[in-house]
Amino acid sequence: MRAAVMRDRKLVVADVPAPQPGPGEVLVRTLACGICGSDLHALRFADHFVETARRSGNTSVMDLGRDVVMGHEFCAEIVEHGPQTRRTLPAGTRVCSRPTLLRATGPQSIGYSNDNPGGYGEYMRLSEALLLPVPNGLTTEHAALTEPMAVGVHAVAKARLELDDAPLVIGCGPVGLAVIAALKAAGHGPVIAADFSPRRRAAAERLGADVVIDPAQESPHDRWEALGVPKARSAQQMIRMMGGSFGRPVVFECVGAQGVLQALIEAAPAGAQIVVAGVCMETDRIEPSIAITKEIELTFVFGYTPEEFAGTLRNIAEGRVDVSGLVTGRVGLEGVADAFTALGDPEAHVKILVEPAS
Amino acid sequence: MRAAVMRDRKLVVADVPAPQPGPGEVLVRTLACGICGSDLHALRFADHFVETARRSGNTSVMDLGRDVVMGHEFCAEIVEHGPQTRRTLPAGTRVCSRPTLLRATGPQSIGYSNDNPGGYGEYMRLSEALLLPVPNGLTTEHAALTEPMAVGVHAVAKARLELDDAPLVIGCGPVGLAVIAALKAAGHGPVIAADFSPRRRAAAERLGADVVIDPAQESPHDRWEALGVPKARSAQQMIRMMGGSFGRPVVFECVGAQGVLQALIEAAPAGAQIVVAGVCMETDRIEPSIAITKEIELTFVFGYTPEEFAGTLRNIAEGRVDVSGLVTGRVGLEGVADAFTALGDPEAHVKILVEPAS
Repeated sequence: MRAAVMRDRKLVVADVPAPQPGPGEVLVRTLACGICGSDLHALRFADHFVETARRSGNTSVMDLGRDVVMGHEFCAEIVEHGPQTRRTLPAGTRVCSRPTLLRATGPQSIGYSNDNPGGYGEYMRLSEALLLPVPNGLTTEHAALTEPMAVGVHAVAKARLELDDAPLVIGCGPVGLAVIAALKAAGHGPVIAADFSPRRRAAAERLGADVVIDPAQESPHDRWEALGVPKARSAQQMIRMMGGSFGRPVVFECVGAQGVLQALIEAAPAGAQIVVAGVCMETDRIEPSIAITKEIELTFVFGYTPEEFAGTLRNIAEGRVDVSGLVTGRVGLEGVADAFTALGDPEAHVKILVEPAS
Repeated sequence: MRAAVMRDRKLVVADVPAPQPGPGEVLVRTLACGICGSDLHALRFADHFVETARRSGNTSVMDLGRDVVMGHEFCAEIVEHGPQTRRTLPAGTRVCSRPTLLRATGPQSIGYSNDNPGGYGEYMRLSEALLLPVPNGLTTEHAALTEPMAVGVHAVAKARLELDDAPLVIGCGPVGLAVIAALKAAGHGPVIAADFSPRRRAAAERLGADVVIDPAQESPHDRWEALGVPKARSAQQMIRMMGGSFGRPVVFECVGAQGVLQALIEAAPAGAQIVVAGVCMETDRIEPSIAITKEIELTFVFGYTPEEFAGTLRNIAEGRVDVSGLVTGRVGLEGVADAFTALGDPEAHVKILVEPAS
């Protein structure tokens, strides 16, 4: 099959073996697959990406000496059923799935794997047990946004928000936008969102952010006070205030660059929870003594539960999460390498979909 | 009055003005005051200590150009009542208090202040509203341990432990020992505790730690597995396990040295909560990408609530927390500087009390 392949740490279009569905698996044709910021990381910092995955306990991550077909935000169409399948969904059904292959030896990644090609190729194999049919009337493009939007749902769940808590979203790239959409779908707000990019601020507004800020012009933390969140100057002061009725300040870090975490620790009010959803691949510096004095909570989040993934597809289909306008570009396999470059500029795009058949 | 004074970043014994009790305040004679690790930090890294406090929002922290009488873990005796006091507790009553002075302009620190001397001096002024009488039969020495033991109670409260969660205490200095005591008093366990120092390991055992480990000999994390906590290799795997019945791994970081946080992020199972109670004064490095992949939660904790402080004094008085054996040395004012030096060696001491009258 044709695929955009990571080979020798570069993206090339090449013919690679089509995957064969094993027991309990189906062969699918990729209809659309979003390009994720993690894929940009995986290409640019390939060795570090693999080393970090291994040190985090992922022993089945790709070997960079062999071909890799990335792509884990996909909508696909069933082509044929492998052995020992139930065949509840017929060939031709459009499906989404978490990018995981269930195997007797344990789950395997789809996309960051040498053996399980992702959505930047014409075909994938998926576990039948994980298939979710795309509801009638939902476009393939919007169904393909299930995976990145589920990341936001999971981050919001990990924040343990009460309805009067005050969420602040730092960074309005795809992760930040998914967090905004999940916050609004769950009824939280007012939601304050901040990004230097006018294009991303416009996207944040479309997704329902109540206050959208250019951090070059004003501090998002100052807006908290304007909205009635008092500024606690110390942990003790915070503890006293906890008897009061104001919401707990919750910051979603959706930038993932060096220095952002410490800047937030310094700027956030005492008692704030910082939910870290942006992936900073480099070693970062923090000052624990300031985090301690202010009783900051750093909640690092990753992925989503099966229920969060399925719920996100339902929410998109039923219009509770409006993802229109998020897809700003479409490319065929030949366009993947350029699309990776284009995504480095926040003004150029929000989300680019790869359509291997086009 | 006589006091051990921090003057020009050194400890000297000198005569300083005795404090005058203002409205709502009482003058007390210091009976005993523990030396805290934070005081060692404040002397050794004085400029950085003050700068960090200011950046954390504490605008009333001491000016190093003027005298400072530190000491915030005290038991004292009422000498006289200032104006506008209720005088419910007569002169001669032994009392404990949080090291805070209530003022109309906001709370002020006792100990890290130029104006409010702490327990390394013969006299202090305290807010009458914060006084807690020492229950009959409780020794002055044990009452003075209320403050450091309350730090452990607060750290445990912030961990949101369920009874089947698996707590691991890294570092058995005064903070780690307070955490162990608080865990056992609340019925949690088995409690695993680790320290390189034989003396500190012995103290951890006396306080009720169920498994005490020398990290030079074996990894405390391996013991988790031996106790039945499965090792989740990734966040996804953790999420699947969350349906199961094993406890959530919770690590109490009670060392406060550079590099410990990242070592724990790497060694802890996915999904672990790391409660950061040890104060690392230097900038520290972490790898957010590993913390994200493993969905680590870093909960930085500081101080205690008024209720936690009062409850700790009650628990010590009623024997629910056995603090016998924690005090390993007593000095007069002339011995404070040497005691600071001696506390640098974990084998030499656990807690040294200053008795200004001796």
